[in-house]
Amino acid sequence: MESIYNIAEICSKKGLNNFVLSPGSRCAPLTVSIVNHPKLTSRTVTDERSAAFIALGLSLETQKPVGLLCTSGTAALNYAPAVAEAFYQQIPLIILTADRPPEWVDQQDGQTIRQQNIYGNHVKKFFQLPTDHQNPDSAWHIQRSISEAINLAESYPKGPVHINIPLREPFYPKNSNDVKYSAARIIEKVKAQSAVDTSDLKQLIQLFNQSEKVVLLSGQNNDNTELNTAVSIFTDHHRIPLWAEPIANLHCKNKIQNIDIILSGEPELEKLSPDLLITFGQSVLSKSLKSFLRKYKPKHHWHIDPSGEAADTYQCLSHIIPVEPKSFFSIFKGDIKNDEWLNNWITMDNKGLTILSNFFNSQSEFSEFEAAFQVTKNLSPEIILHLSNSMPVRYANYFGSFIDSGTVVRANRGTSGIDGVLSTAVGNALCTEKLVFLLTGDLAFFYDRNAFWNNYLPDNLRIVLLNNHGGGIFNMIDGPKNLKEASEYFITNQKLKADHIAGEFNLDYLHCNDRESFKAALPKLLPTSGKSKILEIETSIDNNTKVFNSFKQQIKEQFGK
Amino acid sequence: MESIYNIAEICSKKGLNNFVLSPGSRCAPLTVSIVNHPKLTSRTVTDERSAAFIALGLSLETQKPVGLLCTSGTAALNYAPAVAEAFYQQIPLIILTADRPPEWVDQQDGQTIRQQNIYGNHVKKFFQLPTDHQNPDSAWHIQRSISEAINLAESYPKGPVHINIPLREPFYPKNSNDVKYSAARIIEKVKAQSAVDTSDLKQLIQLFNQSEKVVLLSGQNNDNTELNTAVSIFTDHHRIPLWAEPIANLHCKNKIQNIDIILSGEPELEKLSPDLLITFGQSVLSKSLKSFLRKYKPKHHWHIDPSGEAADTYQCLSHIIPVEPKSFFSIFKGDIKNDEWLNNWITMDNKGLTILSNFFNSQSEFSEFEAAFQVTKNLSPEIILHLSNSMPVRYANYFGSFIDSGTVVRANRGTSGIDGVLSTAVGNALCTEKLVFLLTGDLAFFYDRNAFWNNYLPDNLRIVLLNNHGGGIFNMIDGPKNLKEASEYFITNQKLKADHIAGEFNLDYLHCNDRESFKAALPKLLPTSGKSKILEIETSIDNNTKVFNSFKQQIKEQFGK
Repeated sequence: MESIYNIAEICSKKGLNNFVLSPGSRCAPLTVSIVNHPKLTSRTVTDERSAAFIALGLSLETQKPVGLLCTSGTAALNYAPAVAEAFYQQIPLIILTADRPPEWVDQQDGQTIRQQNIYGNHVKKFFQLPTDHQNPDSAWHIQRSISEAINLAESYPKGPVHINIPLREPFYPKNSNDVKYSAARIIEKVKAQSAVDTSDLKQLIQLFNQSEKVVLLSGQNNDNTELNTAVSIFTDHHRIPLWAEPIANLHCKNKIQNIDIILSGEPELEKLSPDLLITFGQSVLSKSLKSFLRKYKPKHHWHIDPSGEAADTYQCLSHIIPVEPKSFFSIFKGDIKNDEWLNNWITMDNKGLTILSNFFNSQSEFSEFEAAFQVTKNLSPEIILHLSNSMPVRYANYFGSFIDSGTVVRANRGTSGIDGVLSTAVGNALCTEKLVFLLTGDLAFFYDRNAFWNNYLPDNLRIVLLNNHGGGIFNMIDGPKNLKEASEYFITNQKLKADHIAGEFNLDYLHCNDRESFKAALPKLLPTSGKSKILEIETSIDNNTKVFNSFKQQIKEQFGK
Repeated sequence: MESIYNIAEICSKKGLNNFVLSPGSRCAPLTVSIVNHPKLTSRTVTDERSAAFIALGLSLETQKPVGLLCTSGTAALNYAPAVAEAFYQQIPLIILTADRPPEWVDQQDGQTIRQQNIYGNHVKKFFQLPTDHQNPDSAWHIQRSISEAINLAESYPKGPVHINIPLREPFYPKNSNDVKYSAARIIEKVKAQSAVDTSDLKQLIQLFNQSEKVVLLSGQNNDNTELNTAVSIFTDHHRIPLWAEPIANLHCKNKIQNIDIILSGEPELEKLSPDLLITFGQSVLSKSLKSFLRKYKPKHHWHIDPSGEAADTYQCLSHIIPVEPKSFFSIFKGDIKNDEWLNNWITMDNKGLTILSNFFNSQSEFSEFEAAFQVTKNLSPEIILHLSNSMPVRYANYFGSFIDSGTVVRANRGTSGIDGVLSTAVGNALCTEKLVFLLTGDLAFFYDRNAFWNNYLPDNLRIVLLNNHGGGIFNMIDGPKNLKEASEYFITNQKLKADHIAGEFNLDYLHCNDRESFKAALPKLLPTSGKSKILEIETSIDNNTKVFNSFKQQIKEQFGK
């Protein structure tokens, strides 16, 4: 088993220090070697779906690859939702799955499925390790594969890789001390930077200088100080607006925060369309922004991504710029300074902010939109804020102006699922001293309740649960709300409250269902001390819909004024 | 949308009447057409992992294909564990997944992943429906695909099929009354039976007649009266023993129930090996039986399966007989009657039964093994008994003699996962008037707790929860128990009890932790009236291990006497 035990040693040498394990016999040789390795941190999580999202949260925070290990059979399939999220959110996960030797597949033996390529197109690469490790070439095969897998996971676009490991009995060493690591060779991948060729750069600058209306639009980013600095310098120098949602984690003077309000309020949208749209980062949340850009297409659209791969999200992509955004912004210098264009955007942005700031004063009805706003406004600085799909992340998209620049904002926007939101926040909280706030809806919360089912729950979780007992979004979007089947088949009317879960997992529990009780409860949620807490805010879907619609109505009425 | 609405009509005409839906917008055209169809029954389950196992339970009970429908994105990936189980347990599921049109994949739009072929090798076939439905050929494509998919799911080996359905906006009809079904053509697949060719049959009979020691071994079957009758006649006529575990759902005079005890007790195993082993059905549970047959290989091994596919589980497969077992047993007539061989088996079986029956009288310590025994002995007849992986199904393998022949026994032995045991039982309970008992361990129970998270919980569930706060199996098998990391990384020491869940979902809750409280609680679990109930039996892993080891010891000591 030496080659198998050495996988732990190679991971450690390659800087992969965090593992999330799920129990099983087939994976025991790896479990034993990982948990006994002096430099590796291991945690055991029984529900593999939750385990994989916890790993994702750990990787988001540490910005390093995280390892997953499970036994053979459907265990591996339970990782699949998090693997797809990691693939599209570009998070490096190293997925180790124990397997029966190939000759035993389909022989009606327990916990045996067709594990090769089980994640299909949602991993960067699949590695099948050899079954017999006696031959030195097999040992070499294993050794180099682990290095290659980690190198690949960390290369742009970062992402998950899958290593399937067939193992024969016996699985258990007689004694933990029998687990020895030998001097394992690793393959280092040197860091390298691409730079745009001089002639191409010249052409880009020319095109840039000819554009009167330039906009920089960022998709989702993990927090990155260097990127933030480079973007600031670039936008400031050229006097161009930065469209950036909270999940972009960017902060600069020219940032336009209230794009959703502007696009709903401004009567003549065509005028707002840029000549040149420069984008970077991952996905953009705002549906109205995407529709706007698809309808009023910029003449040119550049996308900057070091992988050289780019989505044509707005159906007008003209140039792919295959370098790191921060290096591009550092070297790119054009001649334009379009103050008028920028100032117009800043004026509109301020208008949006005024409408938003005044809106809740005029509302007699308490709603989850108001609760989300007040929570956001009152967050301590320097926290980590997780936003669940589907309504919370949309609400928060209006509150960018109130989020402290020291706060990191995260959301599973790779695939926009609700299936691992809570586990991702738990994983994040496990490896930071900061407070981790999660703003979540009830479906996402209860869906992933096994996030709490492990022995490592930290004290720094603060969960704001907007419980409207169903999929409130189905009452807000056009279409389902008028159908007689909406209540059972779309909204679902789920009846649960979080008090049982809080009791079961020994979390502090706060509850409110109107403005007064909310105001009383909120200050109890914020302190950094004490146990992890849930603040459950019960509201009615009908009220929430009414208030949110009234907000949209006010935008239409007030924006032109 | 007419072609899309018609999918519901085709399903109904093809006898697919049960759907489990999960909420979403992309799938709305299908949701609306399914829930409005007068002949279809729909239930909504938010957690797709649970939804798919509930569908599996529905199909097990109705013995008909069941439909699943979810929205785009990782929703579909959450079906994957149940899909693999359905594939290996040969259960027909029709999986409909809504998708974005292909041109939008990888364009950084929400809830969009690479859904084509997402279940890889664990579906019988993947169908990609066309995106545009205006052309009559597209309508034809959709129509015939649905028929083909259902036909395929119901053909041997039965199993899941996946239909991916790209849909463009608008998703919602203005009014439910706008959903119309037109006269949809279906393709009927006529039932046909294979029969062994006369010359081959002659050879088989010759070989059969030359065998002195013949054994019939059944793997897992769903309950099937005709099969049971045919097997009875066959084994009785030829005087051969039937090895059948509880999950085989077979009952005849010559059934050997205590094979695990016999194989542990009999000192000269070689003598027990048959010349001719005839097998049918799906997987066999007993590890000792599999090891025995692999070590002492029968000269000939015939496997009967209408699909013509056969696993070489014992590494001695000589003939595949591609017909239905019941038709084979009805026509096959050999000349042997080996009474001595049969009687020897019956004697051993009785010995095993005596050891088991006396064992618990000698035990001062209460254990989950005893609890499982007493529960099994006291079950009312004509119920449905679900057995969870991993220890409960192993315990119950000793109790075959005590299971009423009117009881149907079910377990997810296709892949032997713990991930959907509870949801499968819930799905089963939803479509029967009978009591559904589930004997489960704590890991399987808490893993799949979202099984309760729907608005359809029936009153006929009786859950016996053997809670030893961890993976007790890791303390029983050789290997992990002596390792210092066993407690955290294998057993996991999970701390939950079921009282919170019972309260949350309004189930009756009974608790016990010793023999006396168990005896008091058990009669309260058994009645057919009242709400669904959980009986939680808390025991210690150490005690359980001691008692189970002592049972194995007693077999060794007493069997030879």
